[in-house]
Amino acid sequence: MIKAGIIGASGYTGGELLRLLVSHPDVRLELATSRSLAGKPVASTHRHLEGFLDLKYENPGLEEIRERCDVVFVAVPHGTAMNYVPELLDGNTKVIDLSADYRLDIPVFEKIYGIKHSDPRNAVYGLVELHPEAAKEDFVANPGCFPTGATLAAAPLAAAGLIDIAVFDSKTGISGAGISPTETSHYPNLAENIVPYKLTAHRHRAEVVQELTRLDGKLRNINFTPHVIPSIRGIFTTAHLFTKETLSTEDIRGIYEEFYRDKPFVRLPGGVPSLTAVRGSNFCDIGFEADKENNRVVVLSAIDNLVKGASGQAIQNMNLMFGLGETRGLWLPAAAP
Amino acid sequence: MIKAGIIGASGYTGGELLRLLVSHPDVRLELATSRSLAGKPVASTHRHLEGFLDLKYENPGLEEIRERCDVVFVAVPHGTAMNYVPELLDGNTKVIDLSADYRLDIPVFEKIYGIKHSDPRNAVYGLVELHPEAAKEDFVANPGCFPTGATLAAAPLAAAGLIDIAVFDSKTGISGAGISPTETSHYPNLAENIVPYKLTAHRHRAEVVQELTRLDGKLRNINFTPHVIPSIRGIFTTAHLFTKETLSTEDIRGIYEEFYRDKPFVRLPGGVPSLTAVRGSNFCDIGFEADKENNRVVVLSAIDNLVKGASGQAIQNMNLMFGLGETRGLWLPAAAP
Amino acid sequence: MIKAGIIGASGYTGGELLRLLVSHPDVRLELATSRSLAGKPVASTHRHLEGFLDLKYENPGLEEIRERCDVVFVAVPHGTAMNYVPELLDGNTKVIDLSADYRLDIPVFEKIYGIKHSDPRNAVYGLVELHPEAAKEDFVANPGCFPTGATLAAAPLAAAGLIDIAVFDSKTGISGAGISPTETSHYPNLAENIVPYKLTAHRHRAEVVQELTRLDGKLRNINFTPHVIPSIRGIFTTAHLFTKETLSTEDIRGIYEEFYRDKPFVRLPGGVPSLTAVRGSNFCDIGFEADKENNRVVVLSAIDNLVKGASGQAIQNMNLMFGLGETRGLWLPAAAP
Amino acid sequence: MIKAGIIGASGYTGGELLRLLVSHPDVRLELATSRSLAGKPVASTHRHLEGFLDLKYENPGLEEIRERCDVVFVAVPHGTAMNYVPELLDGNTKVIDLSADYRLDIPVFEKIYGIKHSDPRNAVYGLVELHPEAAKEDFVANPGCFPTGATLAAAPLAAAGLIDIAVFDSKTGISGAGISPTETSHYPNLAENIVPYKLTAHRHRAEVVQELTRLDGKLRNINFTPHVIPSIRGIFTTAHLFTKETLSTEDIRGIYEEFYRDKPFVRLPGGVPSLTAVRGSNFCDIGFEADKENNRVVVLSAIDNLVKGASGQAIQNMNLMFGLGETRGLWLPAAAP
Repeated sequence: MIKAGIIGASGYTGGELLRLLVSHPDVRLELATSRSLAGKPVASTHRHLEGFLDLKYENPGLEEIRERCDVVFVAVPHGTAMNYVPELLDGNTKVIDLSADYRLDIPVFEKIYGIKHSDPRNAVYGLVELHPEAAKEDFVANPGCFPTGATLAAAPLAAAGLIDIAVFDSKTGISGAGISPTETSHYPNLAENIVPYKLTAHRHRAEVVQELTRLDGKLRNINFTPHVIPSIRGIFTTAHLFTKETLSTEDIRGIYEEFYRDKPFVRLPGGVPSLTAVRGSNFCDIGFEADKENNRVVVLSAIDNLVKGASGQAIQNMNLMFGLGETRGLWLPAAAP
Repeated sequence: MIKAGIIGASGYTGGELLRLLVSHPDVRLELATSRSLAGKPVASTHRHLEGFLDLKYENPGLEEIRERCDVVFVAVPHGTAMNYVPELLDGNTKVIDLSADYRLDIPVFEKIYGIKHSDPRNAVYGLVELHPEAAKEDFVANPGCFPTGATLAAAPLAAAGLIDIAVFDSKTGISGAGISPTETSHYPNLAENIVPYKLTAHRHRAEVVQELTRLDGKLRNINFTPHVIPSIRGIFTTAHLFTKETLSTEDIRGIYEEFYRDKPFVRLPGGVPSLTAVRGSNFCDIGFEADKENNRVVVLSAIDNLVKGASGQAIQNMNLMFGLGETRGLWLPAAAP
Repeated sequence: MIKAGIIGASGYTGGELLRLLVSHPDVRLELATSRSLAGKPVASTHRHLEGFLDLKYENPGLEEIRERCDVVFVAVPHGTAMNYVPELLDGNTKVIDLSADYRLDIPVFEKIYGIKHSDPRNAVYGLVELHPEAAKEDFVANPGCFPTGATLAAAPLAAAGLIDIAVFDSKTGISGAGISPTETSHYPNLAENIVPYKLTAHRHRAEVVQELTRLDGKLRNINFTPHVIPSIRGIFTTAHLFTKETLSTEDIRGIYEEFYRDKPFVRLPGGVPSLTAVRGSNFCDIGFEADKENNRVVVLSAIDNLVKGASGQAIQNMNLMFGLGETRGLWLPAAAP
Repeated sequence: MIKAGIIGASGYTGGELLRLLVSHPDVRLELATSRSLAGKPVASTHRHLEGFLDLKYENPGLEEIRERCDVVFVAVPHGTAMNYVPELLDGNTKVIDLSADYRLDIPVFEKIYGIKHSDPRNAVYGLVELHPEAAKEDFVANPGCFPTGATLAAAPLAAAGLIDIAVFDSKTGISGAGISPTETSHYPNLAENIVPYKLTAHRHRAEVVQELTRLDGKLRNINFTPHVIPSIRGIFTTAHLFTKETLSTEDIRGIYEEFYRDKPFVRLPGGVPSLTAVRGSNFCDIGFEADKENNRVVVLSAIDNLVKGASGQAIQNMNLMFGLGETRGLWLPAAAP
């Protein structure tokens, strides 16, 4: 059994790691940390887990964490993870960082986040459909939620060198903003509404740029505008992709089927994907339609932001890093409707 | 492996049976019937199940169903199941009926539903927390969704002979009304609203009356009023129970803990239960508070109407009927938030 | 023109007073106070009012407020209003207090709110359907939101001395909890959920008790349990009223039509009322159904908590206090759907 | 008093015309037609209007309608209005058609809608911010809901000849789909979800193309993709406009303020507009931000689809056609939150 620890287990990402790991056949939950809640039962805050674990929140030192765990998931705010990762890796423990700290090249990170990086280490970007080499690593940077949906939507066309301009108009559920109440998460502000933010300069854009330009070094015009919709979970991305050639919907289907062959968590079900069909699951469902008049392709992707957009993808990485099947403990359908 | 069939698999109840059974370690899905969809892939309508099953809807005869299946779940409208059950049981196949046809004594059924019953057979009422004898049966009537939440909320006090008047004010998600659009399920009618219906005479009241009077033959004053709330899943029951004696909250806790000892799917987490903490799971979470001034006890129960209120409970019955552990394949936490 | 001021104008109640008063034909908005926002345009926080007023938030002394205003609406937290009211009334200014400070007899207030009252003044309870004498007053205590819906639902039967036990199971939109984000108003906690609170001892119960026992001095068994539903506005009250006599639905209709004759804001439309049909308006819609088996009557009332439950009712009081028609400036239909 | 009639009054558009006209100081509602509901009180289906009108649905002949009404609002499905309009206009009655029948040049209409047009008449496109000449007409074609939001968002930049590529990613509440339940309006399908449709070829695109190319004859690359969000009312449009020059946010503000000077229903409040701030009102709120890196401007517009997107705009047209102030009877703030 893999002994797993979670640093920063009291938030939504931590809760989702716990939910998935309590049912994972090869994992034993060893520890869950929280500074403010140390000593309290984990199920006293993640009440849906009542009966599934006896863990109490702890706040041990990094050395102890490293010694007790085969794998550690770091689920702390960006700018903080870099204070944990080096020492955690100073042994045989594998680490998956769910923060933004190791996703970008350091100069890009420092510019985008306005933080001096303290750890020169490189990490594989754990979007495993694009980075199967993550399987060989001891340390992986788990992708951001928006970049997962956007990048998977556009990657096949980018890899084919076909994209001229990419506009990602993304719609996310509010759980991505975290467990603490905010103005945006205040029900009267979000219900019956839609709230765009960071219209032109959301930090997650840098990850999309990084990944798509790795696939097509000439692609420059990449745009990303996020919105919060009245939904708890889910990211729905509408990618308006202007292409260099006129494509048919059938052309696109061929390209996507080829690109995502043997990728169990990417589904191309036909028609328009739905947040309902992925809710609670690790899937990314993708649909598309060609607009020949303007050489535009509309590609749609749906993920659960807490699963494929965060904790599920982290476990997908863990599975590969430990030589398990990619779908181990993750092969769960959405609870639709 | 238990070969399982579902009659009437295209609705929400059928979909939820499928969702849970595809992950059940001892079950192989053998067939899913639908008259109108015969020949189409099941995943073409239950799109969240894409990749989990290759089944197509079929419409075989009852004899074939009986021969191919070790267990059959009947998920058809009330008044219809009685046309399937007798022939299905004419062999070694076990049957779990999710309709109302066999839940009530026949005269009560005929009065409440206004339908002549064609099958004199008795069935155990499969609320297994109250009817462990279901484990010995080949045929079980799976309880209604509202009665599951209401009966579990009041049973311990009823069994103690303490209830004078019971008022069940229930709030349900709309999925209980089915997969077909209706006036009530029309988003502009339900969002930002609450819709009571059948204020004094909902058919499910008869099940609550049947079960509570089994526990306390003197209890007469039982009232039930349901409402639809803007939620997809979940039944939240507020039971206003006027008691013959003045009870404290601690008294009640003692009674409930004793009554539900060793019942894995009833949780008494303390505080107010939440639909979020049971969504997608088979739990019934119960909370309570005494109002000594008026000898009232407020008991709250939360279930997922499609799981503990229907398909999960049916699988709980199946587990027992086949000698499996009660929680087999069902020990899944809610996907909160 | 009546010069009107609002003390505490930055919250939802203040915003709703502003929304209604900008269209009132006999009112000129003179001032809107906010300590923290003084100097900022009112429309910078109540953005829907952009273009309707040029007011800036102010923070003047009470003497200045009294001199500038013919009427002052006090929309501050309970325990605070009593610090404003005496000095505001020390002249010719009329005052309508939307807090709880003057709704209850002082000993009851002090017990329920745990606050020593500093002002021995009595006030009329401004539920004008029951208290037409409010028209002759210079000072009125505007009722709470829950008590408005609950009291109007039960008053006709209480006045007839027919109620034995009253159970009010109320469901409110979250705007009643105010403009500041809280755990309960956090979208992931409220959406797809229902959150009961203060199961047996909500402070608003005391107002219902006060008003119903004024109508029927023998009525004792009055119970109130509130829930928050996923809705911005609205209070829906399900009153389970056990009666001393067996009544028919027609009996009840007769009693309610007689009681609410010439009360323009109480409608008895037939059937089940709906939050949708009152949203944004000052109406209280009431429906009912008799349950002869248990001598129970189910009475349903729907109001907009911010209008009839707060600011609209305050303006209804103002209209009467200034000799205007009761419906002046308030005769607006809901914006359904 | 203007005697007004509504043909097709039982739907959401008809209901909203009624809601606004019952409070209009210069209008008397003369008739409301419905074939299927003739004889029933209008308030029996539009229950929020109980107490506001005594009208019953009628089904009179066109000649009678013309004789009884000074203005007729035609709120029937596209392809149907053309059967009413010619005869209605055969006198002194003014007509405002809310269907699509007269919005487009006839060849375009016939191509897009696949219907042979039976009436060669031209109509002014009643987006009065762009077509003040509507004031001189007896017949106006009221714009579609999506085109209103999209066109107003882009018109100032189009008029300045600055747009190279326009991508309108629109999000609508479900009330735009009408009063009858559908798969999309089924609560479990829409709540916690977002549903795009007609990804590249929605009929409303033709109106946007028509209006923007009138402003800039060289603009060709116009794209429109609509989504339904879990909201009853509102259309939020995210316009990704690639410009020929690099603009700053200040540049854009200058252009929009100049263009919409003296347009009372277009507000430029600063920051991000919100559906909440326009709900129930006739405003179009617009915000914007420049993305200099890619010469993209993100323009956001928020309207209430049933008011500025339909019935409110129709009354705005009526006001001008009868020489009334543009805001007459329409100067109502949103009921936020």
